[in-house]
Amino acid sequence: MRIDILTLFPDMFQGPFSESIIKRAVEQGHVEIVLHDIRDYSTDKHRRVDDYPFGGGAGMVMQIEPIDRVISKLKGEREYDEVIYMSPDGKRLDQKIVNQLSLKGNLIILCGHYKGVDQRVRDNFITMEISIGDYVLTGGELAAAVVVDSVVRLIPGVISDETSALSDSFQDNLLAPPVYTRPAEYKGWKVPDILLSGHEAKIERWREEQALERTKRLRPDLLGEDQA
Amino acid sequence: MRIDILTLFPDMFQGPFSESIIKRAVEQGHVEIVLHDIRDYSTDKHRRVDDYPFGGGAGMVMQIEPIDRVISKLKGEREYDEVIYMSPDGKRLDQKIVNQLSLKGNLIILCGHYKGVDQRVRDNFITMEISIGDYVLTGGELAAAVVVDSVVRLIPGVISDETSALSDSFQDNLLAPPVYTRPAEYKGWKVPDILLSGHEAKIERWREEQALERTKRLRPDLLGEDQA
Repeated sequence: MRIDILTLFPDMFQGPFSESIIKRAVEQGHVEIVLHDIRDYSTDKHRRVDDYPFGGGAGMVMQIEPIDRVISKLKGEREYDEVIYMSPDGKRLDQKIVNQLSLKGNLIILCGHYKGVDQRVRDNFITMEISIGDYVLTGGELAAAVVVDSVVRLIPGVISDETSALSDSFQDNLLAPPVYTRPAEYKGWKVPDILLSGHEAKIERWREEQALERTKRLRPDLLGEDQA
Repeated sequence: MRIDILTLFPDMFQGPFSESIIKRAVEQGHVEIVLHDIRDYSTDKHRRVDDYPFGGGAGMVMQIEPIDRVISKLKGEREYDEVIYMSPDGKRLDQKIVNQLSLKGNLIILCGHYKGVDQRVRDNFITMEISIGDYVLTGGELAAAVVVDSVVRLIPGVISDETSALSDSFQDNLLAPPVYTRPAEYKGWKVPDILLSGHEAKIERWREEQALERTKRLRPDLLGEDQA
């Protein structure tokens, strides 16, 4: 898998992509992540890439031309499955979309900033708009990092213990059951006896019950029982 | 506002917090962000902070003791409004929660990793659990960065043009209208005439119509017209 990220702030990805699982996935060749500074594609002598919105109003708008240049260049080099724009208007990311994206070959992700990109970019170049949630960020960079992180960890071989990803929340529409580790007692707070019992089948059943109970209590919508 | 972040991977925040608006907010004293490496609070000679789950199963669990030590130390130094745990089980972040958090004084945010933290941490120390969306990440770090980014930009003075934040998506339960900037025509794709007309009132009406139309089409749930 190859992911090309188009951004005005490539340094924002420094930490998220140079630590932990994403770093290892890149080093082991499971994924190639290429950052493109949109300013490098500006024809303006001050490397300007934004301008005032037509019709007035607050905030700056990212111009179409530099973005067109990067995307055209990349598309001339290889085929892309999706050209994604991170936007609060987009389809809301969930584990199903993450699963689908993890099966793709090459992706472009465009990060908006300021008031966003010129609408003509969205109308003509973008094949998929994704929102990571109903809140506003200073830009699309963190949102893109979230997409990359959630997707890359599902690529086979990235998480060493593959059953670990399968027992995550959402993979079966249930929240994960509670987990405990040593010490068995801390300041009087004890681990449930069942987990210390050694009865594998009973532990498994307890975990299923806990997952179901927790989902019913906290996220009944996942079970389709409550649409509120 | 002061935000203390408890993490096993403090370097993951390098990029997100050293760029753009968050960086400026910190420099201008609008917010103080303090990163704490939980490993510094381990009593183990190998600085170990996780262990196998009781009852077996895949993945490691973060132990209660080092986390208790950081939180107790911080609480001994000042009052905290919330001790937040980033978790897919948590309350789903939306702009309303972001607005509420932006009014708080001191926050602790705990980032889980691996299979999460020992349940006794959640039962005894955590006052609020937040999820940034229905998908699984390699850890709580990116999720915490998302919370910080969304909250900090709302602190008065952080975004220079305050009307810019007010015209964002979600602040009035509507998606933002489309935006355009120069050139007025690019490869035959034109900016809507109305935006070039100079009629302020008409432009304002057009934007409202566009915002409403876009919300109806893409996110009817925001208008309460469709709960699907």
